[in-house]
Formats: sequence, structure tokens, C-alpha cells
Amino acid sequence: MEKSESTKIDIPESSKAEKKGKAPLLGAPAAAAPVYGGRGAGKYNKGVAIFDIILRISAAAAALGATVAMGTTEQTLPFFTQFFQFQASYDDLPTFTFFVISMGIVCAYLVLSLPFSIVCIVRPYAVAPRLLLIILDTVAVTLATAASGASAAIVYLAHNGNSDANWLAICQQFNDFCQKTSGAVVAGFTTVVLLIFLVLLSAIALRRH
Amino acid sequence: MEKSESTKIDIPESSKAEKKGKAPLLGAPAAAAPVYGGRGAGKYNKGVAIFDIILRISAAAAALGATVAMGTTEQTLPFFTQFFQFQASYDDLPTFTFFVISMGIVCAYLVLSLPFSIVCIVRPYAVAPRLLLIILDTVAVTLATAASGASAAIVYLAHNGNSDANWLAICQQFNDFCQKTSGAVVAGFTTVVLLIFLVLLSAIALRRH
Repeated sequence: MEKSESTKIDIPESSKAEKKGKAPLLGAPAAAAPVYGGRGAGKYNKGVAIFDIILRISAAAAALGATVAMGTTEQTLPFFTQFFQFQASYDDLPTFTFFVISMGIVCAYLVLSLPFSIVCIVRPYAVAPRLLLIILDTVAVTLATAASGASAAIVYLAHNGNSDANWLAICQQFNDFCQKTSGAVVAGFTTVVLLIFLVLLSAIALRRH
Repeated sequence: MEKSESTKIDIPESSKAEKKGKAPLLGAPAAAAPVYGGRGAGKYNKGVAIFDIILRISAAAAALGATVAMGTTEQTLPFFTQFFQFQASYDDLPTFTFFVISMGIVCAYLVLSLPFSIVCIVRPYAVAPRLLLIILDTVAVTLATAASGASAAIVYLAHNGNSDANWLAICQQFNDFCQKTSGAVVAGFTTVVLLIFLVLLSAIALRRH
């Protein structure tokens, strides 16, 4: 600061420009970035960060919806025999249990990542939180996709059955159960799509640095 | 440009620094990047690009293995009745057909993306091919994960069955069929892991620009 002021006394105008121009050489990203893209890039990055947080909240809501929809699914048929009452619950099928756990983890991660997303709004040129977010988002998208894909396969089987493997469709009997699980799978895939957009948004924001 | 030259006549030394510093303002990334990270970053990026192509070839090989392993799976049991011969093939289960198609697409994409990866080796500061690769890689990782997850759910069902839904395990009869499909699913998840590393590698390479 002192040096800068002494230069200012000697050649005021050019030293100002030099200070501005030399900043990238010093390797301080917070100071360097505005030189790279100017004020416009800062606004652009802040816009991306705000869009990121909106997408993140939407994805968290979709994941929560998927978890709750699947986790509360059970159906008891209105008729029963002397020894047995027909009942279907999500934890009868291990895949649906996996879906509930995975979607719960993804939802928790998305909520916990909100502070990092806020950091990206406050400091649009910070690289570290963006890189952390893109890595964890990629893992989250894989987890959510695996859970949704596996559940979709089971839901398809419940709807259509498979004559070759001699697995009968159970949706004739457990109609409500099948509809609720299908809804949960749709919510799961919505989460996946939102997470893909989050990853791409982070990649585009990283590029600008 | 004219303005810069007129400044040069007045104060030569400081204007040189200004010109150097101003280059990023013109928005030419190829010229700007060396100022940012110097020669070291160029070598680093080239190393990342070479690692990228190795990972890409491995992922393509894994995807090809998964496709072929699943696509050639069929088993005919050595005993038969008068009217029926017991036979299992991958296309008896729609999920396995989806697996073969998805993994085929992922394998084809990985092979077709090799030229872009080579472009990243030749021009380590090029942003456009990296951004294209990270977007398509993210889509590929989702496709591969969905296919692998869905097939894993069906393979689990074939191994263990489900007493609640009255679906019997078919692996006692079709042992070879089950082992081959399990192998294909493992290859599928290997592809997924390699693709995740590819996405993260592209994100780290983008950060350096």
C-alpha cells in the first residue's frame, strides 16, 4: 500500500493502470479475476451462483419428496384369510429401502451444501468451494441415479411382471402401492436431472475463472 | 491499440507493463493463460489431458466388456420336457436389454470422444473441447449408472428372490446365466467409477485456465 502510494506521486496515471494490469502476475485470484472478465464476469458469476442455489433448493425438495413418498408407502388389502393379511410396504423390497436411504443422503447433502453455495454468491471468484461442490455433486448424481434406476427396474417388474422368470405382476393387487412407488421414482429422476444441471452450472462457472 | 502506442511514446517502460497486463482484458485465452500459470501449468494441463485419454480408453474397454458380457449371455438347461426347453437369455429381461443398449451407447461415445481428448493434449489451454467433454461425460455417467443400477437390482432379485412379492430366485436353475450377468454389472459399475474420475479430471483441468 505504501509502495503504491509512492508510485502514485511519481507517475500517477500509468501506475494506476499498471497496478490494475499486473494483478494477474501476482497470482491473487480475487484481485486478478476482474481484470480477466471485467465487472460483467463478476455479475455473470454471481448470477450463476444465485441460479445454483435455486437449483440446489429445488433438488433438495425433490429428493425430500422422493424419500417421503417412498418411505411412507404401504398398503393393506381390505380382505384377509384366517392366517394372513395381505400387506405391502416399501421395506418388503430391498431396492426400495436402498432408494429411501440414498435419497435421504442426497437430500441431507444438498441441504448441507447450501452454505457453500452462499459462499459462491458472496465471493464469485472463489475456486475452492466450486471445486468441492462439483466433486460432491458428481457423487450425489451417481447415488441418486443408481437408486432411481434400480427402483425403476423393480417398479417396471411390479407393473408388468416377467413371464420368462415366472415373476408375476403385483400391481393388480397392490394398486396404490405401485402408484406411490412410481411417483417416488419420478421424483428421484427429477432430482437426477436437477443435479446434472448443477454439475454443468459449476463447470461453466469454473471456466470463467 | 492506437491509444496504447501513443502512451508508448510518452512513457515507454510503464506502457509495456500495461500492454502485458491488459492482454487478458482483450479476452484472448490462449495469450492470457501463460500469464496466469506460466509454463508449469501448461505441462500440468498436458499431463491431465494424457491421464484423461488413458482413463477414457480404460472406460471404453470396461463398457465394451460389459456390453459383450451381457449381450452374449444365454443358457440352455440340459433337460427338457416334451413341450418346452428351459432357456434363459439376456433379452428375456427388459432391464438387461436396456443395459446392453446403454452400455453400447456409452462405449461408442467414449470412442468417439477420443479425438476431443487428443485436442486437449495438443492444445492444453483450449476451453471449448474440455467443456464439451465434461457435459457429455456427465450425461454418460448418468446413463451408465442408471443401466448398472437397474441391472444390479434385477440380478439381486434373480439371486435372492423376494418372498413378499412371491418372486422366486432363478439362480438355482440358471447358475451360469446369473454369474455372467453379475460379471457384466460389475463391469458396468467399473465404467461408472472411471467416468466419475473423468468428470473430476475435466473439472480440475478447467479450474487451471
